[in-house]
Amino acid sequence: MSNQPFIGMDPEEFRKHGKEVVDWIADYLKNAEKYPVFSRVKPGEIKNQLPATPPATSEKMELILADFHRIILPGITHWNHPGFFAYFANSASAPGILGEMLATALNVNGMLWRTSPSATELEEVVTDWLRQMLGLPSEFQGVIIDTASVSTLVALTAAREAMHKRVREEGLSGRTDLPHLRLYCSDHTHSSIEKAAIILGVGQEGVRKIPSDAQFRMKPDQLAAAIAEDKKNGWLPFAVVVTVGTTSTTSIDPVPAIADICQMEKLWLHVDGAYGGMAAIVPEMRSVLDGCDRADSLVTNPHKWLFTPMDCSVLFTRHVDTLKQAFSLVPEYLKTTDGKVNNYMDWGVQLGRRFRALKLWFIIRSFGVEGMIGILREHCRLAREFALWVDADNNFERLAPVPFSVVCFRYHPKGILDEGKLEHMNAQIIDRINTTGEAFLSHTKLNGRYTIRLAIGNIATAEKHVARVWKLVQQESAKL
Amino acid sequence: MSNQPFIGMDPEEFRKHGKEVVDWIADYLKNAEKYPVFSRVKPGEIKNQLPATPPATSEKMELILADFHRIILPGITHWNHPGFFAYFANSASAPGILGEMLATALNVNGMLWRTSPSATELEEVVTDWLRQMLGLPSEFQGVIIDTASVSTLVALTAAREAMHKRVREEGLSGRTDLPHLRLYCSDHTHSSIEKAAIILGVGQEGVRKIPSDAQFRMKPDQLAAAIAEDKKNGWLPFAVVVTVGTTSTTSIDPVPAIADICQMEKLWLHVDGAYGGMAAIVPEMRSVLDGCDRADSLVTNPHKWLFTPMDCSVLFTRHVDTLKQAFSLVPEYLKTTDGKVNNYMDWGVQLGRRFRALKLWFIIRSFGVEGMIGILREHCRLAREFALWVDADNNFERLAPVPFSVVCFRYHPKGILDEGKLEHMNAQIIDRINTTGEAFLSHTKLNGRYTIRLAIGNIATAEKHVARVWKLVQQESAKL
Repeated sequence: MSNQPFIGMDPEEFRKHGKEVVDWIADYLKNAEKYPVFSRVKPGEIKNQLPATPPATSEKMELILADFHRIILPGITHWNHPGFFAYFANSASAPGILGEMLATALNVNGMLWRTSPSATELEEVVTDWLRQMLGLPSEFQGVIIDTASVSTLVALTAAREAMHKRVREEGLSGRTDLPHLRLYCSDHTHSSIEKAAIILGVGQEGVRKIPSDAQFRMKPDQLAAAIAEDKKNGWLPFAVVVTVGTTSTTSIDPVPAIADICQMEKLWLHVDGAYGGMAAIVPEMRSVLDGCDRADSLVTNPHKWLFTPMDCSVLFTRHVDTLKQAFSLVPEYLKTTDGKVNNYMDWGVQLGRRFRALKLWFIIRSFGVEGMIGILREHCRLAREFALWVDADNNFERLAPVPFSVVCFRYHPKGILDEGKLEHMNAQIIDRINTTGEAFLSHTKLNGRYTIRLAIGNIATAEKHVARVWKLVQQESAKL
Repeated sequence: MSNQPFIGMDPEEFRKHGKEVVDWIADYLKNAEKYPVFSRVKPGEIKNQLPATPPATSEKMELILADFHRIILPGITHWNHPGFFAYFANSASAPGILGEMLATALNVNGMLWRTSPSATELEEVVTDWLRQMLGLPSEFQGVIIDTASVSTLVALTAAREAMHKRVREEGLSGRTDLPHLRLYCSDHTHSSIEKAAIILGVGQEGVRKIPSDAQFRMKPDQLAAAIAEDKKNGWLPFAVVVTVGTTSTTSIDPVPAIADICQMEKLWLHVDGAYGGMAAIVPEMRSVLDGCDRADSLVTNPHKWLFTPMDCSVLFTRHVDTLKQAFSLVPEYLKTTDGKVNNYMDWGVQLGRRFRALKLWFIIRSFGVEGMIGILREHCRLAREFALWVDADNNFERLAPVPFSVVCFRYHPKGILDEGKLEHMNAQIIDRINTTGEAFLSHTKLNGRYTIRLAIGNIATAEKHVARVWKLVQQESAKL
């Protein structure tokens, strides 16, 4: 032992416990549906079981693992459960876990090419694989970022930089040469766009939300009118964010018409395809990205709908130079003489960069493109099937089209017109189902109507799980 | 198999390969020093071995793992190597890897309390443990963020919000009521502060770099003078960033004097203790955080100097309300009725949040506080010892004090006065040592002088490795 390097515990102990953990993970993934999907603990229940002060001396790994099972697990909401239908369901697929184990052990920081050439070059390769799978043009280059929130922040920072108004140097405030900036999105755009605008100094008032049509898609004519009005009133438009698969209903903004406007107005077009963009890998769904070949940037998240453990978001752009122009800062201690290599730290916010390409490489190879297509196709088929069941039941109504794998619906028995009462009933249905531990649903509101969202996206979700949640919905609604 | 949920591969295959991976990790961590620490591949060498297009059909995990060993490993720069002395060395400790394996498998998104109560409540507990270990006052609350770059961005967004100038709502541009914003740091501050200023719309000109003294510490009198001058000239100061452990030399800004200025001027005081702040867990080094109890926010990175696999940065603040005021955006689909719980998505940029608290909990318990103190103490002792060797050799000179575990020095034989020549010689020493594969060094510049940095921070680094790199430095310099 004394001649061995210290790695925090005896290597043989690590070997033993590591294998126990692998055994547990294998059993857990096989049996995830035996856990209640939605944790039943009350606020404070986990915290109250944990010591308020850290241990002075080392504790045995046996004890730590036992506490993990005894204290932590009951407070887990099981995103791996095939009955997880809330938000956007995701998946910790087995090949992804293997890749992540190795990346964690290697623990490289891919800030510079030289700090692990494989991290940089594999990232170049797998993001280009993904680009091809999505059918994006070869001018797009990809970078892996932790989340879509940060990917969008990076894209909009670049959009601001593309105005060439010396924002990087002079900032935004106290300038008489710079009007109030404005970016455009729909009233169904994800909250991360508004968050990015706050951070960037654009402000919430600098986000103009264009109304959507009856199918929750941005109205291009209203966008054009808003831009014209804003310009007349002295605003400086700089970007439009469209969404392929909005969070509430997974609607798809009419990108080709909006791309026309962006081209005419010279505005940066950013596509939020964090969830829905991935569907473009399915040949018959390729059209969901129609017009996105004309975008300036596009984000899609393998950790949402490509079976990749959190976190892994891919930002594509045809303007890497603009990204670098916005972000590159190379202090002396990070200068290298490696020549024409790619130092990804120059592409965004974070200097610390985990080796996320590894798990994505494991996943794409292990599933194969056809394997991934098959799963996404099946998720969409299940959603359409569920939609048919809803449509066939007079006590229910569907509240949005189903272009992907999410169904928006509600219980609406004949004769009840009071929205408050409908909201209360549907909220009760969700709560009661979530309490069963068999399925986990979340909600949204559409035109003021409280809406149940069924989001299919976990790799283990099969027809029987979708049928089961429909049965639960019917049972719980019948009790009301 | 058909009755089993699909997890991306056969669960028994996962079990088998998972154990192989654990065996490999155990052997790898034991034998990391048998690899060349600095990858020897040439640009493009990894990429050229990888197919340009993704595989259409599934590939066997045996093949993927074989390619990992054959193609990826040679392009890894081994951050686990005890001879890794570049940048800030870090550690993928064995307990941290076990915690990360479980977090990856659970794959929860800790955006809301309800999306896994354990993720939120364990984060509250372990960040408070760390707060106590650092000796920070109980008003500080912690949140785990991926990197210090983002932690600092979050802190400075809050600082901007704290001005109460309706920046969140109105943004920064096109406003006649808002002068040009300014924040202050030293000329040794990390590049991430300037990057945050760019993103925030403060701009590079909005970052005023205060000169440092001979020991690379911000001069408080110059700070006070700069603020006075800027106010007279119409700037709006809003924040000061001090560093405990700067990147080049690990110098410590005089926080108490600067805190006085911030108090008087009502400026947000942010402490960048990403690396050096952690040393405050060592009782006799507690004073490195003197004055930081008066800060508004402080960041320190367990993934730097607390044996935590990437990524894990902890942001402490006494102004959680201001963070939430800046960032909280709760669309309908994320609204809950859970009552008074903590939804960490409101504290920062990212909506997607990995369960990072788990690995930190494993680490603190497995090492115990005393165990962690012992390792940091030893790293600092080794650095002081190395500094003595440098000081005792007439051909070398030390270029900065050694308050932590980094030594700045250069080869400087008597009679050579030309800085260009000295730079060339010292760059050659680094290059030649890095080529040996036994040690990896990086550089900085101090007052125009090219400087070799020896950064001790990997958990496996022992006296023999430090002695060895000193021998290599002497050998290579003698050859010049």
